[in-house]
Amino acid sequence: MEHTEVINVRLNEAEDGVVILDQTRLPRYVEYRTVSRLDEMAEAIVSLRVRGAPAIGIFAGYCLYVLARTIRTGDPEKFQRFLSDYGAKLNATRPTAVNLSWAVARMERAAGEESGRGVPAMVARLRDESLAIRREDEHMCTAIAAFGLTLLHDGEGVLTHCNAGPLATSRYGTALGPLLLGRERGMQFHVFADETRPLLQGARLTAWELQRAGVDVTIICDSMASIVMKNGWVSACLVGCDRVARNGDTANKIGTSGVAILARHYHIPFYVLGPTSTIDLACAGGGDIRIEQRDPEEIRSLYYTQPMAPEGVPCYNPAFDVTDHSLITAIITERGVCRPPYDKSLPALFAVGA
Amino acid sequence: MEHTEVINVRLNEAEDGVVILDQTRLPRYVEYRTVSRLDEMAEAIVSLRVRGAPAIGIFAGYCLYVLARTIRTGDPEKFQRFLSDYGAKLNATRPTAVNLSWAVARMERAAGEESGRGVPAMVARLRDESLAIRREDEHMCTAIAAFGLTLLHDGEGVLTHCNAGPLATSRYGTALGPLLLGRERGMQFHVFADETRPLLQGARLTAWELQRAGVDVTIICDSMASIVMKNGWVSACLVGCDRVARNGDTANKIGTSGVAILARHYHIPFYVLGPTSTIDLACAGGGDIRIEQRDPEEIRSLYYTQPMAPEGVPCYNPAFDVTDHSLITAIITERGVCRPPYDKSLPALFAVGA
Repeated sequence: MEHTEVINVRLNEAEDGVVILDQTRLPRYVEYRTVSRLDEMAEAIVSLRVRGAPAIGIFAGYCLYVLARTIRTGDPEKFQRFLSDYGAKLNATRPTAVNLSWAVARMERAAGEESGRGVPAMVARLRDESLAIRREDEHMCTAIAAFGLTLLHDGEGVLTHCNAGPLATSRYGTALGPLLLGRERGMQFHVFADETRPLLQGARLTAWELQRAGVDVTIICDSMASIVMKNGWVSACLVGCDRVARNGDTANKIGTSGVAILARHYHIPFYVLGPTSTIDLACAGGGDIRIEQRDPEEIRSLYYTQPMAPEGVPCYNPAFDVTDHSLITAIITERGVCRPPYDKSLPALFAVGA
Repeated sequence: MEHTEVINVRLNEAEDGVVILDQTRLPRYVEYRTVSRLDEMAEAIVSLRVRGAPAIGIFAGYCLYVLARTIRTGDPEKFQRFLSDYGAKLNATRPTAVNLSWAVARMERAAGEESGRGVPAMVARLRDESLAIRREDEHMCTAIAAFGLTLLHDGEGVLTHCNAGPLATSRYGTALGPLLLGRERGMQFHVFADETRPLLQGARLTAWELQRAGVDVTIICDSMASIVMKNGWVSACLVGCDRVARNGDTANKIGTSGVAILARHYHIPFYVLGPTSTIDLACAGGGDIRIEQRDPEEIRSLYYTQPMAPEGVPCYNPAFDVTDHSLITAIITERGVCRPPYDKSLPALFAVGA
């Protein structure tokens, strides 16, 4: 296995397709595929071939640029309507992650700003905008990693849930960023990666990424977080986020709230890491976050083939849960570290830096 | 699927083998197999073909009787030494469950009591003793179910972890007993069954047993217990136990302590159900309970065939964890309901009833 950078999402050379590293095939197969049509793009998001809130935002940017190139009209208004339609269809694929709708809105706004200069200028702007989203994400991840690293000490044990590494974002990732940046700087951490049922992003993706980067990683089942904490092996929990409400309530992969409750019980700091684009100030609290329900078959069988439960038995399969702000020690963004009360510290990020 | 009683462990007709329902094959295949040799018996326990602390105790009783019949000596002392040797080998298979060593010790003591009457009398007594262990377990389960039912209300939501039903015991099981007895009495409960990684006893066994019995059951991943509790869908948690220390600290399937911490957070009562044979008064607290570590491959792959993680990545795989007594609302035994302080209420069970 080569230690080259993993590019999870990029434009192909002809710029008529988006090349993705198919995350459903990892860790067994490192398989790239190119998607060019709207239905393929939507399927890639729904099936989690592309996943991780920031990565979905980057992917949506590239997708809209590629789709924009196929729109056959010279009329800026018509063009914008087609673009909006594509954006709405991408938006509908996953309701919880704010980055998707954020990227779509940003692309549409960018095109709109060029409408006076004609369709070719709009397409050119969409290209620039999609590359800017990618570039900014990389800068954000680097800053998040650096801020996160200020909270850790060399040699510490860290627990993480799901995957918020390079595959979910760009470059360093969010929750894994401090660990990867620290490794580059010669530090070592002992990472316990929750396998993260039902889709095993922790076992399949986080373990794979950390192993590649030379970070010491041990996989545990989600149910083992309690004993690992009790054993005194964990000094901090690091998780990503899919949507952060104004009061600090955080939607992230199902099981995150349980980890936070355990961390509180064992007096271990619990950190949420994500770009400010994940913070939704229009959302007052966790109660306003819509939680995506997924196919029960994800629980009943592995990879839709190996049975894990009686056929047809009911399963409840929410993709996310909301961690109450009271359980979160700090929220780390590219603009700095926010502490409670979050309804003050989160809006302040936007008042100052933006 | 027929609604007949499931017999997980029984003597075969010739009484030269023990017939077991192979729990590793459920729910896909209902497959019985007969084990006659010590190595097959030990393998059946290690591989979890027979599992659940009380079922292992019953199985060990039958095994020692079947093995005793193969001992070719007329000398009671030699006979007892052979029997001890078999018992020690069975005992070594799983260190955490107290029922195994309890049943082995009981069988050896019974044989010893007949040693003055010769080997045939010792063998006959072993037969009676093994059947008594099975019969007493059924009575115990019925009593546990009845005591547990006093703590529940018709229509309630209940969460359970792992499998402590008929497959793990006899007749009603322990943690599932109140639900099955309640169902017989016309009540209905809404059960959330943690799938219980890595070996999926909840998804494969608990869901199968409850479905057969007409109890409303929904499988969730272990990481979903928090959101189900937060949704207000659960009024009580019911779990079994593999060893209860004098102070109430309870070893049970890995993940149980996490469920207890979540239940405390959400103010939901957390009940442990088990026979008094599971209470080990000689064990002062959870720190004295040895926790069995299992093969990392159980986490890395499903059924040792489907990869779920990068090959060879380290995994930590404890079979059990210890739930602190402070998190347990009550411990329900066949002799009644114990409340804190357990270091008073647990020994009292033995002072009075025994």
